[in-house]
Amino acid sequence: MLEAFLSHTRDQVSKNVKKIIGNSNLIEKAMSYSVLGESKMIRAGLIVASGKINKNISKSSLITFASAIELIHTYSLIHDDLPAMDDDDLRRGKKSNHIKFGEANAILAGDALQTLAYEIICNDSSIKDKDKIEAIKMISKACGKNGMVYGQHLDINAETKKIDKHSIENIHQLKTGKLIQCSVMLGQISNENNNEINSFKSFGKKIGLAFQITDDILEAISSEEILGKDIQSDLKNCKSTYVSVLGIDESKKESKKLMESAISDLQNIESKDKDLLIELAKYISLREN
Amino acid sequence: MLEAFLSHTRDQVSKNVKKIIGNSNLIEKAMSYSVLGESKMIRAGLIVASGKINKNISKSSLITFASAIELIHTYSLIHDDLPAMDDDDLRRGKKSNHIKFGEANAILAGDALQTLAYEIICNDSSIKDKDKIEAIKMISKACGKNGMVYGQHLDINAETKKIDKHSIENIHQLKTGKLIQCSVMLGQISNENNNEINSFKSFGKKIGLAFQITDDILEAISSEEILGKDIQSDLKNCKSTYVSVLGIDESKKESKKLMESAISDLQNIESKDKDLLIELAKYISLREN
Repeated sequence: MLEAFLSHTRDQVSKNVKKIIGNSNLIEKAMSYSVLGESKMIRAGLIVASGKINKNISKSSLITFASAIELIHTYSLIHDDLPAMDDDDLRRGKKSNHIKFGEANAILAGDALQTLAYEIICNDSSIKDKDKIEAIKMISKACGKNGMVYGQHLDINAETKKIDKHSIENIHQLKTGKLIQCSVMLGQISNENNNEINSFKSFGKKIGLAFQITDDILEAISSEEILGKDIQSDLKNCKSTYVSVLGIDESKKESKKLMESAISDLQNIESKDKDLLIELAKYISLREN
Repeated sequence: MLEAFLSHTRDQVSKNVKKIIGNSNLIEKAMSYSVLGESKMIRAGLIVASGKINKNISKSSLITFASAIELIHTYSLIHDDLPAMDDDDLRRGKKSNHIKFGEANAILAGDALQTLAYEIICNDSSIKDKDKIEAIKMISKACGKNGMVYGQHLDINAETKKIDKHSIENIHQLKTGKLIQCSVMLGQISNENNNEINSFKSFGKKIGLAFQITDDILEAISSEEILGKDIQSDLKNCKSTYVSVLGIDESKKESKKLMESAISDLQNIESKDKDLLIELAKYISLREN
């Protein structure tokens, strides 16, 4: 069930993004190259799965929000891969953007992907103005100077330093967690039930952290072929990770514990459609690539 | 009159931006460092001067829009100065961002400045939702993959090539013109008079081009001390400019002609407040730094 759902969502988002970006100049080509690379589009999946539980949101709004989040996520990957940042040559099973298009174009393609995320939300006439504003508020807060960007800054500056579990958790929460949580919450836009909102917030925070812990585990044990990106890049950059701080077994336990606690947050949500979100939470924690 | 107006607007925008960015971490410090560098904030001035003619917009909205445009403009300067782009060490009278904070932090500070521009518009409760959407549409269109970013891409790729007047005009229009025009139009948000809108559009397009022509002239003749940025950076990067294509005298004539034509676009605008915008147009074309 989950595999078919993720595959269907990815197809819809890819089709939408391809149309929106176009293919008329090198910057557009560089943008498409990275967004449409091999990707499970888990963030898009979370938005659509969360939105299925919310009666006040349309399917087409969800695809727009999902496309916007994948544009933001991809911009961050392109910039993170740059030589001045993590210096990774491989991403989503192929050359990273700056290896393929050169550093200047990769910086610009990342910049334009961020811009486009906000633009497509504003341009979707099927979304109410108030919901557009709410979505842009959520995304910009999650990915800005006190969210994803700050997490990436802390991550780079933690290289070669030995840090504790609390610090690594903070970095993960900022760098990856906030955008994952934001994806869950975008599906709940215009839901006015505060108890439900709080449950989804807690669920999103926990699976956000579980996602990055499992990423650390996979980076430590997977082969490059399975993961499709520079593995042991963390090792190369002397980064502290959950695995280097807690070891593999403890990290696996932590990710599973978070996933189970996240799922229990949804117990008061009354909807036959919540199974998909539960399956996604399990996948995020237990996936093998 | 103009000097006092620009100085007052710059003070208001600087105060607002300083408060919004904060000073609690290195990314915030890097962001403030560049936004609050020596700058005339001409784009902010254009928004406020244009807005003075528009009865349907509040002063506080104008300061928010002006702050957002200065954040966007500064993000583009930080990224343009990077070694992979124009490789400039000096900006706004001091070290450029990556020289001061390192390349990784400069990329991240630029990214976060762009995010913040959209965030502050959404967070301003004094602006109507419909006007927020309109502003974000305008800005994202002007600075994205078919605007400023594409202009910067063409500019870099025109290095070492000999190009003609039409091509250089196209690059200037995209790289600088669209954001200048956008500034004029942000002041006209919620103006529903289509004839007036068209006059301001034409005015904005012309002064946008005049601005960049005059920039090329100043880069060719000024001293580093007066301009506060790496002069002859275009020469270093073997860039074609208006001056290299047309010579200094013809470039000066072109900039003046555009300015005069822009001012004549405003002749049907009936407002005692339009003098400021006319003074700004003159300054943009005839300035000496």
